[in-house]
Amino acid sequence: MEMEKLVSLCKRRGFLFQSSEIYGGLNGFWDYGPLGVELKRNIKNAWWQDMVTGHDEMAISQGAPSTYEMTGLDCTIIMHPQVWKCSGHFDLFCDMMVDCRESKKRYRFDQLRGRWVEAKGKKVFVTTLAEAEEEDADLERRALKAFNLRAKDTAQLIWEGTVLSLDKVDSLEAVFAPEAKEIGTLTEPREFNLMFPTTIGALAGEEGRAFLRPETAQGIFVNFKNVIDSTRVKIPFGIAQVGKSFRNEITPRNFTFRSREFEQMEIEFFCHPDESRKWYEYWRDRRMKWYTNLGLAGDRLQLREHDKDELSHYSVGTADIEYAFPFLPDGEYGELEGIAHRGDFDLRSHMEGKLVKNAQGCLEVELGEDGKPKYRGSGRDLQYRDEVTNERFTPHVIEPSAGADRGALAFLCEAYTEDAAPDDKGQMQTRVVMKFHPRIAPIKAAVFPLVKKDGMPEVAQEIYRALKKRFPAFYDEKGAVGRRYRRQDEAGTPYCITVDGQSLTDQTVTIRDRDTLEQWRVKVDDVVEEIASRVS
Amino acid sequence: MEMEKLVSLCKRRGFLFQSSEIYGGLNGFWDYGPLGVELKRNIKNAWWQDMVTGHDEMAISQGAPSTYEMTGLDCTIIMHPQVWKCSGHFDLFCDMMVDCRESKKRYRFDQLRGRWVEAKGKKVFVTTLAEAEEEDADLERRALKAFNLRAKDTAQLIWEGTVLSLDKVDSLEAVFAPEAKEIGTLTEPREFNLMFPTTIGALAGEEGRAFLRPETAQGIFVNFKNVIDSTRVKIPFGIAQVGKSFRNEITPRNFTFRSREFEQMEIEFFCHPDESRKWYEYWRDRRMKWYTNLGLAGDRLQLREHDKDELSHYSVGTADIEYAFPFLPDGEYGELEGIAHRGDFDLRSHMEGKLVKNAQGCLEVELGEDGKPKYRGSGRDLQYRDEVTNERFTPHVIEPSAGADRGALAFLCEAYTEDAAPDDKGQMQTRVVMKFHPRIAPIKAAVFPLVKKDGMPEVAQEIYRALKKRFPAFYDEKGAVGRRYRRQDEAGTPYCITVDGQSLTDQTVTIRDRDTLEQWRVKVDDVVEEIASRVS
Repeated sequence: MEMEKLVSLCKRRGFLFQSSEIYGGLNGFWDYGPLGVELKRNIKNAWWQDMVTGHDEMAISQGAPSTYEMTGLDCTIIMHPQVWKCSGHFDLFCDMMVDCRESKKRYRFDQLRGRWVEAKGKKVFVTTLAEAEEEDADLERRALKAFNLRAKDTAQLIWEGTVLSLDKVDSLEAVFAPEAKEIGTLTEPREFNLMFPTTIGALAGEEGRAFLRPETAQGIFVNFKNVIDSTRVKIPFGIAQVGKSFRNEITPRNFTFRSREFEQMEIEFFCHPDESRKWYEYWRDRRMKWYTNLGLAGDRLQLREHDKDELSHYSVGTADIEYAFPFLPDGEYGELEGIAHRGDFDLRSHMEGKLVKNAQGCLEVELGEDGKPKYRGSGRDLQYRDEVTNERFTPHVIEPSAGADRGALAFLCEAYTEDAAPDDKGQMQTRVVMKFHPRIAPIKAAVFPLVKKDGMPEVAQEIYRALKKRFPAFYDEKGAVGRRYRRQDEAGTPYCITVDGQSLTDQTVTIRDRDTLEQWRVKVDDVVEEIASRVS
Repeated sequence: MEMEKLVSLCKRRGFLFQSSEIYGGLNGFWDYGPLGVELKRNIKNAWWQDMVTGHDEMAISQGAPSTYEMTGLDCTIIMHPQVWKCSGHFDLFCDMMVDCRESKKRYRFDQLRGRWVEAKGKKVFVTTLAEAEEEDADLERRALKAFNLRAKDTAQLIWEGTVLSLDKVDSLEAVFAPEAKEIGTLTEPREFNLMFPTTIGALAGEEGRAFLRPETAQGIFVNFKNVIDSTRVKIPFGIAQVGKSFRNEITPRNFTFRSREFEQMEIEFFCHPDESRKWYEYWRDRRMKWYTNLGLAGDRLQLREHDKDELSHYSVGTADIEYAFPFLPDGEYGELEGIAHRGDFDLRSHMEGKLVKNAQGCLEVELGEDGKPKYRGSGRDLQYRDEVTNERFTPHVIEPSAGADRGALAFLCEAYTEDAAPDDKGQMQTRVVMKFHPRIAPIKAAVFPLVKKDGMPEVAQEIYRALKKRFPAFYDEKGAVGRRYRRQDEAGTPYCITVDGQSLTDQTVTIRDRDTLEQWRVKVDDVVEEIASRVS
C-alpha cells in the first residue's frame, strides 16, 4: 500500500486533517475528523475496558502469575517542574542539534549524514537528511553544487568511502550542509530539550517556567501514595492513564507517527521485586495479544526484545511492539508500544531527599544554600508495606506504554485494502475498503432504503434508530445503492443493511458483510441483535 | 453541606488530588484519582452518547425545529498562533493586573476592594481580596496595621463610605495593598494575557511563540470546511468536541471550579441565519434538561438568560446553566455551561482577508508591507451553499459550551449527602453517601460474600466477574458487611449485592439500594440483568 493513498483517504473521508490547515497548517500537529475521532475513541475505550474496568483480577487465564488489581488515574498535563528534574527529563530529554548559519535551518545532529567527495583539489563532506528518498542522486546533485560543476561534469567527482553519519567527521569546516550554498556553515552541536516550555501563574511569587508533560507516566508515580491511601489496593496492582503528551520533535514526520502532540495509554504496574520478571513477561505477552486481537494479526506486527546490552542496569527486560508501517523502508519497523521493566528507578527517584522542619515547624523538602531543594526527589516515603508479611519495600515497576495515535495509524494502515467488488451493473471494479476490526470501526452499521419510496425509508429509519441506541450507525438514502456501499467500505463500516421491495412483504432485510461481500436476509426484528452480536 | 467535607472525601476516597502534591502541589491544577477518573469518564461519555453518537436526527421529540445531524472532532491543544489573533484571544483575552512592589504579589485589579479610613490625620484606602471571608474584620485588622495602631485603638479609625472596588480610587498612592507593610506600593494596572504561552519547533525558520488553546471551540471553526468536505453533512448540523483547555487564571480557587487546566465539552451548531433563534432556544432547553436528567434536579440548578444589554450586537441570546455551589455565598450561582448565539462572528473572522498569488504562483494569504498577513483571517471561503436552494450564506452558530470539571464538581456537590443508616448492630448512625445518578456513578455494583467461607466467596466472585463484563464493579470480602456498605456509600455505588447463607441453598442474593437502603432478594442468574436494567 502506498502511504499517499492512505493519507489522501484520511483527509477525504475525515479521519485526519492537518491542524490549523486554513492557516497553512502546523508541522507535527494533527486533528482527528468525524471518522477519526470515533476510531480513536474506540481504541482508547477498548484499552480502558480491557486493561482497567473490564479487567478481571480473578481470572488468571491470561497467563498472569497471580491475581492483580487495576485502577485508573487522570493527571494534569502541566505538572510541578521539579517532577521533570527528578525524572531526568529536564537534564536528559534532549537531542543534539546543529544550526546552519547560512540557511538558518536547524538539524538533528544524528539525522545528517553524507559522503566525502573530492573535486577541483578540494575535499568536501556533502550531507543530506537521513530521510532523503534518493540518497545517492541527492548527494551527487549537491556535490556538483558544492564544487560549482554542471551535471555533465559528474565524472570529475571522486567519491570516498560510504555514507557516514556526521559524528564520524572530525571537523565541521569541510561539511556542506543540506540547504547551504557555502561550505562550513554548521555550528557545533548543542543540546535542545524536547519538552515544550510554558509559564504558569500570574502571581509574581509563583511565576515560573513549567513544561508540558512529555509522558503521562510521571503523573502516576507522583500519585502512587495517593492511590495506595485512597483505594485499598494491594500489590501487585497497576495504575492506568490515557492522556495527551507533548514533545517538541525537531523533525516531526511520517504522518501522525512522529507528532509533537500525541496521546498515550500507559500502565505502571507495581509488584514485588522478586516477581518482577514474571510480571514483565506477562505484560509483554498480554499487550502483544491485545493488538493481534484487534486485527493487527499479520506479519507486519512483531515483538522485539531488547538485547541485554541495550538495557539499563536495573532492568530485566524491555520489549517493543512494532509495526512495519508502509512509510518505512522494507524490513524496518516502527514502535507502537514499549513494555519496560523499570525496577524501582522511578519511585526511588521521587523519594530521594529528606523532609526537614522549616521555621514554621512544618515538614518541607530540605533546601540547599541557594534556597532551592537540596535533593531532586520529594523526600516522601513511597515504599510499600505488605500487610501480611509486614515487609517494607520499594515496588518494582513494569511499564506498558502505548501510543494511541500510533495505534490508530497502524490500524488505519492495516485496514487499508484494495480489492474488487461488483458495481451496480455487476461489473467488477477496484474498491477501497478499510477492514477495521468491528470493535474499532467508527460506524458499526449503515442502513439504506433501496429506493426513496414505497415506505422503504420509513422501515430503514426505524432500524437505524434502534441501532443508534446501541452504537454509532449511519443512514443513507442518496444515490445508487452500489455507491452507498462503496462509501461505507471507505469508512470501514462492517455491515450494511438494505431495505428492499421484499422487506415490505416479508419483513426481512439484507445484511452485507464488508469483507466477504456476502449478503443474507434477516428479520427486521432481529437486525439489532444480529449486528450487536457481530460487533462486540 | 460544608465544602471542606467534600474536599476531604474527594481526597480520602480518590476522587481528586492536588496535582504534583508530593512536590508541594501546583495551584490551579487537579488530578482525578481512581474514582474520579471513572466519574469524569462517565460524564464525558454520557455527553458524547447523548449529543453525538446516540443523537437521533430523525427524532424531533426533543423539541428540535427540524431534523439535524451531529458529528465529532478532536483537535490539537497547540494550534497555529494566527487562530488566536483571529479569534480575538491574543488581543482581548486579558485581565488587568496590579503588582505590589513590596510583597511581590500580583493581584487581579477587579478583585481588590476596600474602604477609605482615616486616623492620625492620614487617609488611606485599605484593600483586601474580594474573596476574603470576613471582609469587615479583615479591613479593620489591616487598617490598624496601616496606622501602626493596636487592637484596642479601633475607636481611632474613622471609616468613610462603603466597600469600593479599586477602579473607583483616583490614585494608587494612598492604597494599602493586602500583604504590604507600606502604603502606595501598587503599580498601575496592566494587561495580562490568560493564554499559556509556549514555543514550537526546533527548526530556526519555524520557531515561534504559540499558545495552549483557551477553548476548544476554535478548533471546530477552523475545521468547518474540512468537515463539510469530508462528510456529506447538511445544515443544520453540529460539530462536537471534548478536550483540555488552559487558562492562566490569576487566582485559581474554589477547588476545581476555577482551574488553570480544565476539560471542555463544546458543540458548535451551524444553522441558517433565519432559524438561529429557534435553534438557540432548542439548545438552551435541551442542555438544561441534560443536567436535570443526570440528577441535578434540585433548586440548586438554574437557567439564567442574559439581559438584552449584556449581549453582543450580533447575538439573539445567551443563557448560562448555573449551579449554587456550596463554596459560593447564599444566592450566588456558578456557571456550568453557557449556551450562546454567536451569529456568524466566528466563521466570518476566520474568513476575513483574501488569498493572492505569491511569487511561485501559489495562493496564499495577502501579506502587508511588514511581511505579515495583512488581514487576520485565513482568506478561505467558509460560506455554505445550500444544494437545494443554491443559496450561499455564512451559517449562524449556536454554541453550547460545557465544563466537564465543573459538571463533575456539581455532580459531586449534589451527590454528597449525610443521613442515617443502621450499623452492623442495628444502631442508627450518621452515614455519608454519594447519591450519584447510576449512569455517572464510578462503580455500578459491589459484590460481598457475607463471610469468607462456606463457598460464599466463590459465588460472589462469579457474580462479580459476570458484572465486570458489562460495567465497573467492585468485589470486597474484608470486614463487617456494614462497613463494606459504608465504603460503597461513600464511593456512590448504587447497588450492593450480598451472598449469604441463604444464597447457598436457594441461589438468591440480596441487592441493597444505596439511597433507600431497601434490600430484596434476586436469583443469582438474574443479578446481572437486574443491575443492568437499573443503571442504564
